[in-house]
Amino acid sequence: MLHIDAGRLHDSIARMAQIGATPAGGVTRLTLSDEDRQARDLLASWCREAGLELRVDRIGNMFARRPGREAGLPAILIGSHLDSQPRGGRYDGAFGVLAALEAVRTLNDAGTDTRHPIEIVNWTNEEATRFRPAPTGAGVFAGRILLEEALAAKDEAGAVLGDELARIGYAGEHPVGRAIAGYLEIHIEQGPVLEAAGVPIGVVLGNFGVEAREVRLTGSSAHIGTTPVHLRRDALLAAAEIVQGIRRLAEAHEPHGRATVARLEVHPNVRAIVAEQVELTADCRHHDPDALAAMSAEALRVIEAAASAHRLGLEIPWTWSLPAVPYHREWLKAIRSAADELGHTSMDLYSGAIHDAVEVGQIAPTALIFVPSRSGLSHHEAEYTGPEHLVAGAEVLLNALIAYDCWSC
Amino acid sequence: MLHIDAGRLHDSIARMAQIGATPAGGVTRLTLSDEDRQARDLLASWCREAGLELRVDRIGNMFARRPGREAGLPAILIGSHLDSQPRGGRYDGAFGVLAALEAVRTLNDAGTDTRHPIEIVNWTNEEATRFRPAPTGAGVFAGRILLEEALAAKDEAGAVLGDELARIGYAGEHPVGRAIAGYLEIHIEQGPVLEAAGVPIGVVLGNFGVEAREVRLTGSSAHIGTTPVHLRRDALLAAAEIVQGIRRLAEAHEPHGRATVARLEVHPNVRAIVAEQVELTADCRHHDPDALAAMSAEALRVIEAAASAHRLGLEIPWTWSLPAVPYHREWLKAIRSAADELGHTSMDLYSGAIHDAVEVGQIAPTALIFVPSRSGLSHHEAEYTGPEHLVAGAEVLLNALIAYDCWSC
Repeated sequence: MLHIDAGRLHDSIARMAQIGATPAGGVTRLTLSDEDRQARDLLASWCREAGLELRVDRIGNMFARRPGREAGLPAILIGSHLDSQPRGGRYDGAFGVLAALEAVRTLNDAGTDTRHPIEIVNWTNEEATRFRPAPTGAGVFAGRILLEEALAAKDEAGAVLGDELARIGYAGEHPVGRAIAGYLEIHIEQGPVLEAAGVPIGVVLGNFGVEAREVRLTGSSAHIGTTPVHLRRDALLAAAEIVQGIRRLAEAHEPHGRATVARLEVHPNVRAIVAEQVELTADCRHHDPDALAAMSAEALRVIEAAASAHRLGLEIPWTWSLPAVPYHREWLKAIRSAADELGHTSMDLYSGAIHDAVEVGQIAPTALIFVPSRSGLSHHEAEYTGPEHLVAGAEVLLNALIAYDCWSC
Repeated sequence: MLHIDAGRLHDSIARMAQIGATPAGGVTRLTLSDEDRQARDLLASWCREAGLELRVDRIGNMFARRPGREAGLPAILIGSHLDSQPRGGRYDGAFGVLAALEAVRTLNDAGTDTRHPIEIVNWTNEEATRFRPAPTGAGVFAGRILLEEALAAKDEAGAVLGDELARIGYAGEHPVGRAIAGYLEIHIEQGPVLEAAGVPIGVVLGNFGVEAREVRLTGSSAHIGTTPVHLRRDALLAAAEIVQGIRRLAEAHEPHGRATVARLEVHPNVRAIVAEQVELTADCRHHDPDALAAMSAEALRVIEAAASAHRLGLEIPWTWSLPAVPYHREWLKAIRSAADELGHTSMDLYSGAIHDAVEVGQIAPTALIFVPSRSGLSHHEAEYTGPEHLVAGAEVLLNALIAYDCWSC
């Protein structure tokens, strides 16, 4: 078994966390922002120091390649994403990229060659904070999102994804997508399961699929002092019923699914005027496709019933679907044996968060390793994973990679 | 009975509605904005043309005085406010000021003198869209708001009320507040009662008191895909329970009271992050002080129960109270007889909206006349009162004023 340089891994994570650092210890590194450029530049410089050849594709995905010993074999990709949520954590995404970098540095130090070329990948716009659909880079790579549609996406300020890529110098020339031998990603769990079980390594069996809807409810504004409730068309009353209905759905499906309203905007949002319009997003997730379809249909019934009860107009201006993805058995075997041989306990679980692996898993043998998140916190400045778990995870990644590379040796 | 010049009244209303006009036929004339300055300048020019002496007090209230025939008597004030809600209606406030102007113009044309001086008043910041506490000008005049506190109030952009007054040229030199003989205001109902009853004149018996609270609920942000509901501290779930609880309170107290949540803000308000914080405003109104106190206590119980059930931090950073006000019997008699003699039916009702009359009613004999609002709509660009109702209301105002002026003749 190969062992990584723990100090070097921690230094890389700390150095990367300075880019977009927030006072409370997190990072704000929105996709294609100046901070994203700095993060990409830093990764590129480290990859060049490691002797890797860097390529950027037309959607801005970065690939840093270490050649394999057998001519003509496709590459195995390892990595994740460097963009973050606003006031997000320093580990979400970045750990996966830097653990991949540490794995390649360790192969270099040990003089270990591999059959396949190994490429570190940084996918563009995993977080969907500015542009949709997402994960963008991995989605275009997997052929699920059209390149032209992705390049034309606009953020709320009207900036265009393709222009922003060019602005930060990452509108690459290489075509997007090609045959690969496999993809392995390591990520913090972003949930409470591993910590509660006291287990350092999570073997992710599959990813929840997603059915999300943006809902717009339109009633009438009116003066709050003069209009009785039964004469109002109050969009906020309907929205409150939807929030409660989606919560009942969550309680009925956990732990195999999730359902949430996390975003809700009121117009005109003035104290003395009955809410004329509310926009909210209702999000359902489940690892079983049939159960997901049933949840999604029930969510729609809740939404329609609330709109109808309050005589509101109902629009669904945006929907988002992501299929449930099972991860690949050869990778799962490689991860479990690497953990065993390194002396780390591991457990099977599903992922309720979206990852680049969900997209790549549509077209190539893919897997996902989890390490614990303190209190399950993520998308939060207080996100934390202990250094011993980071090292354990990076070593499982490296040794699972070596095992998978020789799967048919 | 004196009759007004209907064409002149409609022209004044149409002219004033051009200031801050919105495409959908309403106005945006936020207090102390450039539009408010233009509206004030237009009123001032009309008052000078009518031979009135204009005074502005330190909080920007405008008083245009027509002398009375008996030396030493205090003035009777008639008027309302020229500021509006964002995308509000053209009648809310402005009709009361322009009906008062038309009353004085009619007295001039008829050569009718009065015992008391008559002053047209435009009160500063009735709408509370930028600055609180409000109604500001009337509240300072009535001694319920400290002048220094009002001048130091800041809007969300950090602009200071006193600076904004000076910027638009309405930081007057006259002291705020003095003895007056009475105050009469006419306003659109902003509710559906008169229209439903087919009655053109509302005799307002009193004004609902208000107990409003801004509530801040603080939980934890977390990833929506990974965190089960029972482990979340989701501020939006508690907020939905509060919206529902306040609605039950409204249903229990109508038609004598109202209860509403109309403003609600979610942080960080991102699709994939459980709501960490929600701020909302819960507003209770009732015409009976004891019933209002009971409603307010029940609202607080609803809020505390929801915060506690979701293990949230609870703050109440702002509260606002306005006592219930009964209007003055001599004014009510004068209004009813004026309506009768002019051949207009009238009905008694309470006001659920706040008006400058609520503040002035604390220190002087005060009353409020309502005219119908189509569909009860107000604080809305589609706000509308038919021209025949505007004329009827203005004539009732004028003749009630004459009757009240001679009350002890």
